[in-house]
Amino acid sequence: MQSNQLTEQGQLRHFLTIEGLKKPMLTEIMDRAEQFSGITQRQVKKVPLLRGKTIINLFFENSTRTRSTFELAAKRLSADVMNFNISTSATSKGESLLDTLHNLEAMHTDMFVVRHDQSGAAEFIAQHVAPHVSVINAGDGCHAHPTQAMLDMFTIRRHKPEFHNLRVAIVGDILHSRVARSQIQALSILGVGEIRVIGPQTLLPRDCQTLGVHVYHDMDQGLKDVDVVIMLRLQLERMKGALIPSAREYYRCYGLSPEKLRLAKPDAIVMHPGPINRGVEIASAVADGPQSVILEQVTHGIAIRMAVMSMALGAQQQETDT
Amino acid sequence: MQSNQLTEQGQLRHFLTIEGLKKPMLTEIMDRAEQFSGITQRQVKKVPLLRGKTIINLFFENSTRTRSTFELAAKRLSADVMNFNISTSATSKGESLLDTLHNLEAMHTDMFVVRHDQSGAAEFIAQHVAPHVSVINAGDGCHAHPTQAMLDMFTIRRHKPEFHNLRVAIVGDILHSRVARSQIQALSILGVGEIRVIGPQTLLPRDCQTLGVHVYHDMDQGLKDVDVVIMLRLQLERMKGALIPSAREYYRCYGLSPEKLRLAKPDAIVMHPGPINRGVEIASAVADGPQSVILEQVTHGIAIRMAVMSMALGAQQQETDT
Amino acid sequence: MQSNQLTEQGQLRHFLTIEGLKKPMLTEIMDRAEQFSGITQRQVKKVPLLRGKTIINLFFENSTRTRSTFELAAKRLSADVMNFNISTSATSKGESLLDTLHNLEAMHTDMFVVRHDQSGAAEFIAQHVAPHVSVINAGDGCHAHPTQAMLDMFTIRRHKPEFHNLRVAIVGDILHSRVARSQIQALSILGVGEIRVIGPQTLLPRDCQTLGVHVYHDMDQGLKDVDVVIMLRLQLERMKGALIPSAREYYRCYGLSPEKLRLAKPDAIVMHPGPINRGVEIASAVADGPQSVILEQVTHGIAIRMAVMSMALGAQQQETDT
Repeated sequence: MQSNQLTEQGQLRHFLTIEGLKKPMLTEIMDRAEQFSGITQRQVKKVPLLRGKTIINLFFENSTRTRSTFELAAKRLSADVMNFNISTSATSKGESLLDTLHNLEAMHTDMFVVRHDQSGAAEFIAQHVAPHVSVINAGDGCHAHPTQAMLDMFTIRRHKPEFHNLRVAIVGDILHSRVARSQIQALSILGVGEIRVIGPQTLLPRDCQTLGVHVYHDMDQGLKDVDVVIMLRLQLERMKGALIPSAREYYRCYGLSPEKLRLAKPDAIVMHPGPINRGVEIASAVADGPQSVILEQVTHGIAIRMAVMSMALGAQQQETDT
Repeated sequence: MQSNQLTEQGQLRHFLTIEGLKKPMLTEIMDRAEQFSGITQRQVKKVPLLRGKTIINLFFENSTRTRSTFELAAKRLSADVMNFNISTSATSKGESLLDTLHNLEAMHTDMFVVRHDQSGAAEFIAQHVAPHVSVINAGDGCHAHPTQAMLDMFTIRRHKPEFHNLRVAIVGDILHSRVARSQIQALSILGVGEIRVIGPQTLLPRDCQTLGVHVYHDMDQGLKDVDVVIMLRLQLERMKGALIPSAREYYRCYGLSPEKLRLAKPDAIVMHPGPINRGVEIASAVADGPQSVILEQVTHGIAIRMAVMSMALGAQQQETDT
Repeated sequence: MQSNQLTEQGQLRHFLTIEGLKKPMLTEIMDRAEQFSGITQRQVKKVPLLRGKTIINLFFENSTRTRSTFELAAKRLSADVMNFNISTSATSKGESLLDTLHNLEAMHTDMFVVRHDQSGAAEFIAQHVAPHVSVINAGDGCHAHPTQAMLDMFTIRRHKPEFHNLRVAIVGDILHSRVARSQIQALSILGVGEIRVIGPQTLLPRDCQTLGVHVYHDMDQGLKDVDVVIMLRLQLERMKGALIPSAREYYRCYGLSPEKLRLAKPDAIVMHPGPINRGVEIASAVADGPQSVILEQVTHGIAIRMAVMSMALGAQQQETDT
């Protein structure tokens, strides 16, 4: 898929997927987030960078957590934000998605943050928006969740900055996870030494090897000597589809218990995109333990989103100025 | 109905209906919108004109699109906005409408933007609010939608500034349309040469002639040589009431196809308040075609609402100062 | 219950309950509100005191009125506010309350305004939040509603500043009322001469005498010569539980009619936390009459909430600075 997320000058216009981006771009995003990270710890957690800009959270799928990180990021950049829950809005009057989009655009919107349960939705919208509008993918179906992947990379870099030396394991339902897909791409681009995926046959994509990852069905083997353990959220609805026998059985095989974590390096960090299912994919003792950086991920999510939003709108600005 | 929307000095205090306003007032609104139109295209789309003012969107009827244009207009004037969906709020605890109003007033609210499915609701509220509060009618029943009419006039003026020479046709369900009612009043006040309404007998008001309009049941005749075609949205629920035979039959008689549009002047513009029903009242080829100014209308909606809001609050300010 | 709402220096960190606070603290809150009261009447009703602060309205129980006063108070202090209706959010994905809290905290939230139908919920949350977060109780079960009590004290002080000379009657369902509980505590701390509660046996707490109040079952006796009458809202759902015979019967015994009000002092003021049930606990003639200060209470609610929010965040600031 040829993504139109970069301008001709190679700057970020949309942020739809990690795929196809180069290492300097990912590094620039993280460096920019590092600056915003400082702001977030000041008394006045606000910069006037996007004052007068209009950002619309276009959520076709409910996600309070993700929406609120984007909303906060936008407000801390001094932008005006409007939340749209599309299922309850104009489309119920029979208006087509594109008509809704073009209407919102016509109000001089600068950015859409899009969440959708269909893979490719953000890309579709980016292909149809006016030249003055940026699109940020906040998760589309099983396809991509690039800001989540970048906040994960940022979190890893904070603890283990030498990517090429790292051994990273992603555990769980890789097959249906937009988070995992984006993470694997980002880890590859950043040159991580070894990427492992751990899960049952039924929850791994068939083309796993072509992704450049090592596949493990046995968690004990997969966790051995890793520096980073990324647990995925178990979508409990998968159990209805008989892909997973039971929560208890899943935990026994692929849940991260303190014992299993001991197989990783002693200073390994534990990550999870949240919200966590305690006792299903992760033990409370691990989630709340000293190796967990799960809440740091949430904090970094704001900085990463501020970085991506300001870059996308900044890039545009330059295009317009020329 | 004697409307109390002007102050003793003849300035806008509320904006409830076009009826009874004079041409200079409509012109002032459009001139003010012209200024705001420039702001909307700047990098920082914001002026501090209403900083520290509190505006409440009081929506008794759901309308994401209209609410969001008012919300954006208020934010671009730097006001604080709160959205109230009244059906889900205090009235469910058995509080009367007036008690809710007086409570919101007591919080030092400066303006209510009111949407209601009952004709006269905005007027009723304006009669009961405290002297420091302005009311803007964002559509009440079949009665009026004055900001929509003004954005339409503004759009026409941008393309055809000589109102007295114009021939304007409004097509569709005039009878139930608050938009049409307000448009006809505005077109008359601005001295438009000829106003036509086109629709089946069942969807035209009985007193059409007294409105000073020419009535056509045949669309081909009605569109002949007009400068502006205003299509109304077909309320599909009218079909249940047997007022309309079927969507297909309606389109055949009163839908705007490329062929029908050819009967108008070659440089005629096509307008629609949105959201459009493609293939019902308007063909996609027309809605997306070169004569369509439908998305311009949306853009101008922000500027017109900024104009009306700032005038209503400015007028008050002067009253208080004196 | 030992509440952790004060810092070691005795400053307000959280605001959970009136219980245990000293008179100077209540006076400081009212004095601070007096300053904000002036701001609310200016053209620009806004101060930059909490610019860059993030305040989250965490409402587990729906209350448009209370939420909007906190939202307005926060906006007039220039803070960024996000509304969370928790029943519809992450907890529906099976996330625990504490995980949701810690996630919101990790976004560098400065304050939670908490409304919950369980007594003790705000205290529980305050015990678990990170050191940088303040908690304001916006009503928890039958336990406390401290900002309501303070706005009531503020309203009384505006009209009758000599607390020790006052005779105050609270009428209605004292047993289930968090408002009454907080009011009685505040009146006691401020040294009000005589506090009376009036209601049927079934709606009075058993330990009434230990609260230092005088109990009346007969309203005529109870209202005699009082300076302040505080009516409580009748929770109509109590009638199902057979605690109250009928609305009409209730009004006959404990409703505030113009005749009953005549038993109080001629300059007595009438208060009600709202929303009022006209003709159930209060006659319209009284609610809208010259002795009613019900809408003043709403106005003062904004100033009190601005005071408490700024004090809680200011106190913290000093703690951090030291």
